[in-house]
Amino acid sequence: MLTAPMNKKLLAEFFGTLILLAVIAGSGVMGAELSDGNNAVALLGNSIATGAGLYVLISVLGPISGAHLNPAVSLMFWASKELEPKELAGYCIAQLTGAIAGIWTTHLMFSLPIIQTSTKPREGLGILVSELVSTVVLLIVIRLGIKQQNDKVPIYVAMTVMAGYWFTSSTFFVNPAVTVARGLTDTFVGIQPLDILGFIAAQLAACCLIVVVVKLLRRSNF
Amino acid sequence: MLTAPMNKKLLAEFFGTLILLAVIAGSGVMGAELSDGNNAVALLGNSIATGAGLYVLISVLGPISGAHLNPAVSLMFWASKELEPKELAGYCIAQLTGAIAGIWTTHLMFSLPIIQTSTKPREGLGILVSELVSTVVLLIVIRLGIKQQNDKVPIYVAMTVMAGYWFTSSTFFVNPAVTVARGLTDTFVGIQPLDILGFIAAQLAACCLIVVVVKLLRRSNF
Amino acid sequence: MLTAPMNKKLLAEFFGTLILLAVIAGSGVMGAELSDGNNAVALLGNSIATGAGLYVLISVLGPISGAHLNPAVSLMFWASKELEPKELAGYCIAQLTGAIAGIWTTHLMFSLPIIQTSTKPREGLGILVSELVSTVVLLIVIRLGIKQQNDKVPIYVAMTVMAGYWFTSSTFFVNPAVTVARGLTDTFVGIQPLDILGFIAAQLAACCLIVVVVKLLRRSNF
Amino acid sequence: MLTAPMNKKLLAEFFGTLILLAVIAGSGVMGAELSDGNNAVALLGNSIATGAGLYVLISVLGPISGAHLNPAVSLMFWASKELEPKELAGYCIAQLTGAIAGIWTTHLMFSLPIIQTSTKPREGLGILVSELVSTVVLLIVIRLGIKQQNDKVPIYVAMTVMAGYWFTSSTFFVNPAVTVARGLTDTFVGIQPLDILGFIAAQLAACCLIVVVVKLLRRSNF
Repeated sequence: MLTAPMNKKLLAEFFGTLILLAVIAGSGVMGAELSDGNNAVALLGNSIATGAGLYVLISVLGPISGAHLNPAVSLMFWASKELEPKELAGYCIAQLTGAIAGIWTTHLMFSLPIIQTSTKPREGLGILVSELVSTVVLLIVIRLGIKQQNDKVPIYVAMTVMAGYWFTSSTFFVNPAVTVARGLTDTFVGIQPLDILGFIAAQLAACCLIVVVVKLLRRSNF
Repeated sequence: MLTAPMNKKLLAEFFGTLILLAVIAGSGVMGAELSDGNNAVALLGNSIATGAGLYVLISVLGPISGAHLNPAVSLMFWASKELEPKELAGYCIAQLTGAIAGIWTTHLMFSLPIIQTSTKPREGLGILVSELVSTVVLLIVIRLGIKQQNDKVPIYVAMTVMAGYWFTSSTFFVNPAVTVARGLTDTFVGIQPLDILGFIAAQLAACCLIVVVVKLLRRSNF
Repeated sequence: MLTAPMNKKLLAEFFGTLILLAVIAGSGVMGAELSDGNNAVALLGNSIATGAGLYVLISVLGPISGAHLNPAVSLMFWASKELEPKELAGYCIAQLTGAIAGIWTTHLMFSLPIIQTSTKPREGLGILVSELVSTVVLLIVIRLGIKQQNDKVPIYVAMTVMAGYWFTSSTFFVNPAVTVARGLTDTFVGIQPLDILGFIAAQLAACCLIVVVVKLLRRSNF
Repeated sequence: MLTAPMNKKLLAEFFGTLILLAVIAGSGVMGAELSDGNNAVALLGNSIATGAGLYVLISVLGPISGAHLNPAVSLMFWASKELEPKELAGYCIAQLTGAIAGIWTTHLMFSLPIIQTSTKPREGLGILVSELVSTVVLLIVIRLGIKQQNDKVPIYVAMTVMAGYWFTSSTFFVNPAVTVARGLTDTFVGIQPLDILGFIAAQLAACCLIVVVVKLLRRSNF
């Protein structure tokens, strides 16, 4: 298991989530600025950059903290007793503060006002179903990936998210820390605060679903 | 060989094909919606997402069911006695029902009417030749890949399909379950029911061709 | 070394070059048809498909014939005595006929007239320098790749060509068989017959340059 | 460690940086020429080509010279005593001359005037912060990558730079030799001479920051 001291783990989660959000939001800003209204081209840049960034982040930070970078992932590992309650709390705080710091770093780099609130609606039943499906897919990929070829998890997650940006109507947020932080940017990747709760509810529902199903399957020796 | 119990294998084929179709159809809908008529940009998103999705699906489900996700592939393995008749039937049913469920999941996520029928014509001799060539290429890649570096098959198949979307006029359906399911969506990736039979005939012809050629080559110790 | 019988090797070179040309020309036709005049989008599809196709072809055919798919590569291996004169002749014929068959297969798939001649000019000193630089780069990558990590050669060549489509004014033909065959298609990837000789001269000059430099370096124990 | 003789190492750094600049500038010229003003499409080609090129260059030249191709990277290795002062000087000269030769090779290939000066402004606090963040990220990825999975460093660096083109407002120059050379091309990737100093200052500041932080962390047994 991971033997790094706790403060090193939390630093990895903090800076990892910070850079992840900079990649997500920064590539969104760049794509929207350059693509002159052709959002499919913006999404291409956004999805390719996010996939590449995630691959590197999970690869180099994985051996330190596990590179969850996502409270839903930490929650799943806590449910399977691979993370203690105190660690779960620390991870979630590091991820959330890192995510917000990542958004602000992006605004600083692109000379935008640091403090913003998104006005982009992401609502409707379809989008909530999409976010539920997205999170279920991500968590199953992580579970099966670890079981079958642990060293390939970074590329599995990166490819899943890159595809996810394209095949889901919610564009695969799958991450409560990412969701909250994206509420703080009025750019391509934003989400208006009103819609954040629905996204997080869908993500947590997916997390519970996976935990329950895994327990049932294990009990029945499936 | 694969030692998972049969119901676990069928579950893997069902959900794997479901997500595969969600990736194919969902990224098609997203691309068409955002690209404002520039279908090459839509196809870029569609092909990159499908390649990434296939890579992950075959990687994580391969050790469970073989991750055929395609009746033509199952048929080839049945012909070489790597799948029993009863297994072949189960696999095909799981793939077909999974594929249709994947299309409906996509419609649900994008808030589209669930039940649709495609009106997109895909006809003509060129397209049938294309589908025959496509399926031959896919099956040879799988055969040679398994023989030469089994653990690389997921990336070989993913890259083959990603390239195939671009270099064939039929856009590389290569899969009877996928073909039937794509008849049920009136979006970017649809195929009007009238043209489904031709596609499946070309796919099965490719399958037979491969089976016969492999047998002849083995008999002559080629 | 490669122990496959000669006729199996030639078959691999023939069909490998056939599919390579189908990928190059087919993705070019598709890109040009769909991109509505935005040639950068067409080149994106063209280069990504070619990179993906090359990766798979070299991976699965490499253990059979070495997957040269290119007379300039075969020539380099003949110069370093890794290929006999008779083999060189066989390889070149298989590659050339395969390349032409690949162009014709593409025309068949896209319902275009089978027999065509390109009218696309590719001329000027810059383009000839570009083709010389391209071929030098390709051959050095192959030489160094084999020496340093032989099993990675497929991905090195694929990435080199994908980048090459973008960074050279000649778009990285680097292959006499490909060059001749592309003279036979009046589509996005064509080259008018008048300009073929210059391209092939540049490719062969690069080949001679590499052979001489490698010999000099070895003699001086560099 | 690397056992190649010094002149071979310098040759690898010279030609490696030459080709790197040809890839960066050439794909920029191609993208801008073809994309008809849609700079997001140009950036897609530019970033994908640069990522692919970097992956190959670092892979095949790494075992010879370490494939720094970047004075900031050489400086970091000198600070950690993995490079001697005389080597550092040689590397920097090879990289700088190689970079300029690469720009001129690109101009030659695209039939542009060889000697140019950029007129493209890249200024402002945001851009300087962006360049600082970029270089910090690159150097941390290299440090952690070497420590955790040395043979994956080429793909880590390639993916980092590909994402970096998208998520930073300075588009991830991260390299003093690259920065100077890009001052000599009045194309998509240029930077006006006035702004070069700020970029290099940010890059060197990042380098110092990393060196100091690594020393502090080691001293405190972090």
